[in-house]
Amino acid sequence: MVRDGSRGERDLVKLLWEKDFAAMRAPASGGATKKPLPDIIAGNGEIYLAIEVKMTSGERIYIDSGKIKGLLEFSEMFGAEPYIGVKFRYRDWIFLSPSDLEMTPSENYRLDLDIALERGRDIHEITGRERQTRLR
Amino acid sequence: MVRDGSRGERDLVKLLWEKDFAAMRAPASGGATKKPLPDIIAGNGEIYLAIEVKMTSGERIYIDSGKIKGLLEFSEMFGAEPYIGVKFRYRDWIFLSPSDLEMTPSENYRLDLDIALERGRDIHEITGRERQTRLR
Repeated sequence: MVRDGSRGERDLVKLLWEKDFAAMRAPASGGATKKPLPDIIAGNGEIYLAIEVKMTSGERIYIDSGKIKGLLEFSEMFGAEPYIGVKFRYRDWIFLSPSDLEMTPSENYRLDLDIALERGRDIHEITGRERQTRLR
Repeated sequence: MVRDGSRGERDLVKLLWEKDFAAMRAPASGGATKKPLPDIIAGNGEIYLAIEVKMTSGERIYIDSGKIKGLLEFSEMFGAEPYIGVKFRYRDWIFLSPSDLEMTPSENYRLDLDIALERGRDIHEITGRERQTRLR
């Protein structure tokens, strides 16, 4: 159910530029090192974001625990706020902190639409100053 | 005389990780937007770097003025220090601020090896706190 995130990443990069963030996608091939890279890095001189992008036509997303570990490591080192940016079909982007996710019995992560709506933030919140506001 | 910078970019990304910077190359295809992207972004939670990479087997490098304009725009917006990272063959990386470059009669930029050595900084300086120290 999870589609290729490439178009989604491009759309999100454009949205971030519209919010006056300079944003860049990771290279397709993982780049120079074995180091984990987020899908998108963005900054506006004050706030720095590292975003792992997920898209789905369903109402649930699974995320490999290695991806989350990598996102946290990169963000900590780079100096960025780690987010999972989720695009459920027909909905706006929702952004979650790694700590918002739920663990599966196999120790990966799961995110259901209702949890995403409850815990997530929208693009205005993650790019603005009122970052603690919740989506609803 | 200027070689494809791809291998150089990868080498520099590795060096930055060794200096405890999380570093990422720009995507090969320019990515999602027409926005100018630096070749490398890196950060360590304190210092953020946007780097345009140049390699040469000669002793002089020319840089298109549009590249420098783009580097400055991205860096200003993202919140990063703009550098031109230059690899002259058989020498270590030298990093220059856009203001260190000299303008050509055609209003592009030129950098000669002797000027680079005089005005440039090494990787320790741009990744450390003593960033005002000069290369020699």
